[in-house]
Amino acid sequence: MILSSSVAKAVKSHSETTENKYIYAFEDGNKNMKDLLGGKGADLAEMTNIGIPVPSGFTITTEVCDLFLREKNYPDGFAEQLQEQLAVLEKKAGKKFGDKKNPLLVSVRSGAAASMPGMMDTILNLGLNDETVEGLIEKNNNPRFAYDCYRRFVQMFGDVVMGVSPDLFEEALEKMKEENNVKADTSLSEEKLKDLVGEYKKIVKNQTSEEFPESPLEQLKLAIEAVFKSWWNDRAKTYRAINGITGLKGTAVNVQSMVFGNMGDDCGTGVAFTRNPATGEKIFYGEFLMNAQGEDVVAGIRTPMPISELEKINKSIYNELIKIKDVLENHYKDMQDIEFTIEKGKLFLLQTRNGKRTAKAAINIACNMVDEGLLTEEEAILKIDAKSISQLLHPQIKKSAERNVIAKGLPASPGAACGKIVFTADDAMQLATEKGEKVILVRKETSPEDIHGMNSAQGILTSRGGMTSHAAVVCRGMGKCCIAGCADIIVNASAKKLIIGDLVLTEEDVITLDGSTGEIILGEMEMQEPQLTGNFKRVMEFSDKIRKLKIRTNADTPKDCKVAVEFGAEGIGLCRTEHMFFEEDRIHLVRQMIIAKDEESRSKPLKELQKFQKKDFVGIFKEMDGRPVLIRLLDPPLHEFLPTQESQIKELADDFNVSIEDIKDVISKLHEINPMLGRRGCRLGITIPELYAMQVRAISDAAIEVVNKGQEVNVEIEIPLVGEVKEFTYMKKIVQDVIKEYGDKVNFNYKIGTMIEVPRACLTADELAKEADFFSFGTNDLTQLTYGYSRDDSGSFIPKYLELGILEKDPTATIDKNGVGKLMQICVELGRRTKKDLDIGICGEHGGDPSSIEFCHRIGLNYVSCSPYRVPIAKLAAAQAAVMGK
Amino acid sequence: MILSSSVAKAVKSHSETTENKYIYAFEDGNKNMKDLLGGKGADLAEMTNIGIPVPSGFTITTEVCDLFLREKNYPDGFAEQLQEQLAVLEKKAGKKFGDKKNPLLVSVRSGAAASMPGMMDTILNLGLNDETVEGLIEKNNNPRFAYDCYRRFVQMFGDVVMGVSPDLFEEALEKMKEENNVKADTSLSEEKLKDLVGEYKKIVKNQTSEEFPESPLEQLKLAIEAVFKSWWNDRAKTYRAINGITGLKGTAVNVQSMVFGNMGDDCGTGVAFTRNPATGEKIFYGEFLMNAQGEDVVAGIRTPMPISELEKINKSIYNELIKIKDVLENHYKDMQDIEFTIEKGKLFLLQTRNGKRTAKAAINIACNMVDEGLLTEEEAILKIDAKSISQLLHPQIKKSAERNVIAKGLPASPGAACGKIVFTADDAMQLATEKGEKVILVRKETSPEDIHGMNSAQGILTSRGGMTSHAAVVCRGMGKCCIAGCADIIVNASAKKLIIGDLVLTEEDVITLDGSTGEIILGEMEMQEPQLTGNFKRVMEFSDKIRKLKIRTNADTPKDCKVAVEFGAEGIGLCRTEHMFFEEDRIHLVRQMIIAKDEESRSKPLKELQKFQKKDFVGIFKEMDGRPVLIRLLDPPLHEFLPTQESQIKELADDFNVSIEDIKDVISKLHEINPMLGRRGCRLGITIPELYAMQVRAISDAAIEVVNKGQEVNVEIEIPLVGEVKEFTYMKKIVQDVIKEYGDKVNFNYKIGTMIEVPRACLTADELAKEADFFSFGTNDLTQLTYGYSRDDSGSFIPKYLELGILEKDPTATIDKNGVGKLMQICVELGRRTKKDLDIGICGEHGGDPSSIEFCHRIGLNYVSCSPYRVPIAKLAAAQAAVMGK
Repeated sequence: MILSSSVAKAVKSHSETTENKYIYAFEDGNKNMKDLLGGKGADLAEMTNIGIPVPSGFTITTEVCDLFLREKNYPDGFAEQLQEQLAVLEKKAGKKFGDKKNPLLVSVRSGAAASMPGMMDTILNLGLNDETVEGLIEKNNNPRFAYDCYRRFVQMFGDVVMGVSPDLFEEALEKMKEENNVKADTSLSEEKLKDLVGEYKKIVKNQTSEEFPESPLEQLKLAIEAVFKSWWNDRAKTYRAINGITGLKGTAVNVQSMVFGNMGDDCGTGVAFTRNPATGEKIFYGEFLMNAQGEDVVAGIRTPMPISELEKINKSIYNELIKIKDVLENHYKDMQDIEFTIEKGKLFLLQTRNGKRTAKAAINIACNMVDEGLLTEEEAILKIDAKSISQLLHPQIKKSAERNVIAKGLPASPGAACGKIVFTADDAMQLATEKGEKVILVRKETSPEDIHGMNSAQGILTSRGGMTSHAAVVCRGMGKCCIAGCADIIVNASAKKLIIGDLVLTEEDVITLDGSTGEIILGEMEMQEPQLTGNFKRVMEFSDKIRKLKIRTNADTPKDCKVAVEFGAEGIGLCRTEHMFFEEDRIHLVRQMIIAKDEESRSKPLKELQKFQKKDFVGIFKEMDGRPVLIRLLDPPLHEFLPTQESQIKELADDFNVSIEDIKDVISKLHEINPMLGRRGCRLGITIPELYAMQVRAISDAAIEVVNKGQEVNVEIEIPLVGEVKEFTYMKKIVQDVIKEYGDKVNFNYKIGTMIEVPRACLTADELAKEADFFSFGTNDLTQLTYGYSRDDSGSFIPKYLELGILEKDPTATIDKNGVGKLMQICVELGRRTKKDLDIGICGEHGGDPSSIEFCHRIGLNYVSCSPYRVPIAKLAAAQAAVMGK
Repeated sequence: MILSSSVAKAVKSHSETTENKYIYAFEDGNKNMKDLLGGKGADLAEMTNIGIPVPSGFTITTEVCDLFLREKNYPDGFAEQLQEQLAVLEKKAGKKFGDKKNPLLVSVRSGAAASMPGMMDTILNLGLNDETVEGLIEKNNNPRFAYDCYRRFVQMFGDVVMGVSPDLFEEALEKMKEENNVKADTSLSEEKLKDLVGEYKKIVKNQTSEEFPESPLEQLKLAIEAVFKSWWNDRAKTYRAINGITGLKGTAVNVQSMVFGNMGDDCGTGVAFTRNPATGEKIFYGEFLMNAQGEDVVAGIRTPMPISELEKINKSIYNELIKIKDVLENHYKDMQDIEFTIEKGKLFLLQTRNGKRTAKAAINIACNMVDEGLLTEEEAILKIDAKSISQLLHPQIKKSAERNVIAKGLPASPGAACGKIVFTADDAMQLATEKGEKVILVRKETSPEDIHGMNSAQGILTSRGGMTSHAAVVCRGMGKCCIAGCADIIVNASAKKLIIGDLVLTEEDVITLDGSTGEIILGEMEMQEPQLTGNFKRVMEFSDKIRKLKIRTNADTPKDCKVAVEFGAEGIGLCRTEHMFFEEDRIHLVRQMIIAKDEESRSKPLKELQKFQKKDFVGIFKEMDGRPVLIRLLDPPLHEFLPTQESQIKELADDFNVSIEDIKDVISKLHEINPMLGRRGCRLGITIPELYAMQVRAISDAAIEVVNKGQEVNVEIEIPLVGEVKEFTYMKKIVQDVIKEYGDKVNFNYKIGTMIEVPRACLTADELAKEADFFSFGTNDLTQLTYGYSRDDSGSFIPKYLELGILEKDPTATIDKNGVGKLMQICVELGRRTKKDLDIGICGEHGGDPSSIEFCHRIGLNYVSCSPYRVPIAKLAAAQAAVMGK
């Protein structure tokens, strides 16, 4: 298309005058610029600006990452900006990048808007080459240090940028240690380290057919590229997928003057939390190593010292650190996770961020900060990740149970877990997902490559690493039990053996982990329900005050009801009657009913079933004690109740004294090509009205009995799978007619409404609202129909979709706001247009998902309904939605 | 809810002052009041007001019917209005209802807004009882006539109102005739007729345990009720279902002074069309019987005389009729279907309505009326039922074929049909729908009870009845071949024999009907394509001038393309590539591709397939000669291409030299629980990109070859089953990359667009429109997903839904405007918001359905695409939509 000349002129002059800013010096950013500078960059900028000692540096924006990944090239003007910023950095440091006498070394670190620990790649000591290393030696008069930096740099760069397997470098290092008969890296002499650099460069050349780049500027550009590209590496993608991180442009890159914790014994490095991330106690909590670089602490190779020891070693540094931690916590109004380095007695902060914490810690910190006057109740609940509190809602090891403790490690992530031992992430995933086994992943230490196995396992046990090791950090994020750094155990992964003294455990053995004590227990332990008291209760009280959404539960049995009510459920949002049909004492009657050839022979088993169903409902009504109980009439296609195996068919035929052919006829008649789209829901009710009539009779009988015994009953009878208002009116009349049979005996309250799970129901909600007393979104089916996916079959393409980024999240877990959500909004709008105060809820998987709950709050639903264990999560998420929606 | 007192006051005063008008005298209505007065009532009113001689009367509105059916009672004030209107009627007639000396008799007839011939019930001579019959005798001095009226009345009333089987009355009549040794009803004496009245009343008493009502007012009220209730009788429901009549409130009831065509030889009755309803010729066309009541003509019991004979019998009446017919036709600007009665030399019109006609007649009448200056072209096309012209588009008996004519009847409805003989409607339906056989329904005469069988049969043959008999009228409406009143044949339904002289045919024999000549031919005749010339061509030219929608066709082969282009198709709207995969020479390669275990072994069969696909596309591009050709990339799940039977599986295993288990593994891996919602459409393309790439290569190869030979190619490559824009962009890139491989060789025009068949695609159409060059609605799948129905499985509930009125129409045949249509509107609106001139079409079943086409015009689509034979229908429907939309 040819632009008109005036338009073309305007476009040109625009691009000439507005130069894009690709790089920000730390002084130019602030903590609100996370989208552009990443979390790390924004926080480095913020710290710089509030006077915290931070090594100077600059941040390349996430936009550059996005442009680079799309265009496979840096944008115009980027190179100039990089030169400018380097010049500023050199001036501040009084060193020059690539200088033979006094070289500036930098670190290159990734940092996206959302924290992804261990996922992205980092390069330290960049700027070293055979010439600058001499400058470094000269300047510090410490050749061992200089060559140690150099060999580390070559190793990291070779791995991250040039793609050489880190094992090859490790092998060379081990070989060098063996040859020199030393055990620790630190025992290698400068000469040997220098040789090692040469070895490493040879390895790079052998593996890549390329020379190791000597030009510091080229090193820098390649490193930046590598960080950008790592945005799409498998580990990063897996982490984002597991943690539901979407919508980001990419990672920023932070280039920062190096400070060294490994320059001698007056140097060190550490990581710390301003409060205990496992318990929430207001205790400064962390670990450090003297004469080490940062990677040594988190990689878990050397076991670090607790932060309190620092006071003994260097009191003034320790006091400075305490002061800084208080400044940061007050500034950010949140618990901080910091990294620091001591270079020749001078303290530098390398990072601060809101610290990851266990749910227990999050709750305690939130409540403590309210008590300290640092946060309001509304601010406080936003500090808790609603999803994470599920870890508090799951069983712990029963207190009274006798424990056969075989070892003890660091209580790195609380909760309890038991399962079969596995030694590799792949085994963990295979056993867990394919065989449905519960497994404990046992490793020397974990790495980002293990994410999929960690996700599949019940819990993680490592023999190395501390409370901030990879395993510990990731597990706390996942809300998964972890015991780390258990020095008592020997993990022999190749032989698949876990050795504790004389005890040798193999893959057949079951162990139990207590993540709160660090105890490893032989065998399977009895678990107990969590105690939801203290600060947990307070957070629930805050939430109850703040939230607008009611929280109901999906429960089919009195037992489920009891748990849910204890968790604070305000009613049942979905009681599925089919689950009752499958119970052993009923399935026979159900089959008899299905096989019956006419209404008459169907009536006998129906009458029997009615008695069972009545009993079910009595139990539920009692337990719910007047709270609303939504009961869905039978939904699944009838063939689900029939057997498929020849032997079972024969048994059934014998039972009913009919021929096998008769049974097969019924099965084949009921067979459907697409059962999801077949005769189920109200289609069953309309074609076999006596089935729904039986259920309504059972409901009425039960309700009358419970009311007569002095409790209230509020039942909501739900017609499923309605897509056309006439389906509803037809079924409604059948329900009403049955209830009318009871005449004056009807002493309970009832409503008749419909599930909204067919797209057409949303589109005709104005008509449905004329007839229905309530709506309840069945977003499982609604999602499947809106996408045209069957959850049973989408396994053949959904993983590929997630991998390719075609889907950012699995829409069956989190409501697809853009599509399914639009239908829901249409439904709410049309429904309320007809009936202003129409009661609308949601049941199904999405009802317990915080992001979906936020959406439900926003579109004005009255309640969400979720599984009993998710009720507290839903309460908190609903309150958070109410605060954020203000 | 308690109304505030001022509101309550307002409500009260409103209901006091506004009395509802439930009944309209003919003088008070007009032809535009069909919704309220029904077609018959509105036309009686219109005729009354333009001075046509009509027996006076009044119409009870359809609203009363609706109220009565819902409340099971007449509305307040109705009885008073009925009394008032009866008084007016008595005054006009100079007779009194129920009077012993000079009784007013009335007819009670139904009449809905849409014509439903023979479907609703009629009662004549109402008002007779043992007393008033004496008055009738006295007044007319004709006791035989009076008792004939009386026994007819009791018979009709007994049947229609009191539910006594008409057979019982017929038996009594036959017995009476036998006993008196007479053959015709008319030969029974007054005494015998009087006895018959007594017999009939006894039958009523025996059957119903109720006395025959003697009070004329009670008779009237019961009759009105019976008419109302008949709205929901099975015949009426079936007729409405078949003819897609929906949205009506019910039937009106016309109460009219009786006039008698059976009072003697100066009396008579007839029905006529103002033009020939079979051919459209401008010839007054009808039948009459002297000394008969109206029912005798249409029931087909006596064979009536052609209308031209009336001139000889009573020239002045004939001339008056001719005048009236011209007045009516000019007034209504349409061909009229009239009923008249001559009472003692005086002519009365009992009914006029737009006459049903064959498609051929409709076309000729429309064109003739344009030529006569009566209609504009735009008005003229509205006179043709678009659906009906399909009868002109189907084969006729080949002209040159030798005919073994075994009998000849009246050419009651044109077209040709052949099939096996069946003798009952049930047999017709069973053979046709269950076994897929073509059948000819052979009956003495048809009745409304036969509708389902007539619908299933290819054609109808009757031995009795004329051109206006039930069979003839219904068949013309259905566009189905019919030969009526074939006196040469004897139909012995109980013995299942069709006897023509010495020839005895049974259910195994095949006959052919020529509905245009009335010839019955033994055996199956060769058919020939219709000639679409003359007025048909003119109507198409009118349509082409008027319509806004383009018409494309769904065609997968060059042969289909040829037919479609001859019918005037302007492009291909859907070329399904999977049909090509099933052809014998390819299926082997397709299976080889599916069984292949990796990309490499898949590439060989794909390369072979590409050659075949190229050949297909060359043929299509050539035939379409530069018209747009939309090609959908492979859509169905792969398992559809694999065999299911053990023997075929073995064959396949042998062919590919693999084990049976290998094949079974592939089949079981591809098995899906809900294949409609599984891996198909673009999900295939994304998971097996080389498959779509092959198809795009075949398209490109073909297009380049055809362009090089001098034709133009405009191809539209369609990605199916897209629900998320990233699916589209991913596939689009694959398509573009393949085309890029051809570099400068690309000499054809192409667009890349998507099918809109997943609800989510509609909801995110704004995003899709950014990437897609065009949209094409796949309303088959869209309907299934929006309702959550699978067409394969809905047989277990859709018939019940239609029967119960839960669905008014099958949404897979006519677009569900209320649900699916809303999604389409959302899609068009969002799509065009992004891309103002986005090309949007529709393919699939709905593209050839006039009501759906009207909707597509209204929401602004660019084209509809339908099967080749439906192209002319679509053109006409599109033009009608354009006229109506003005």
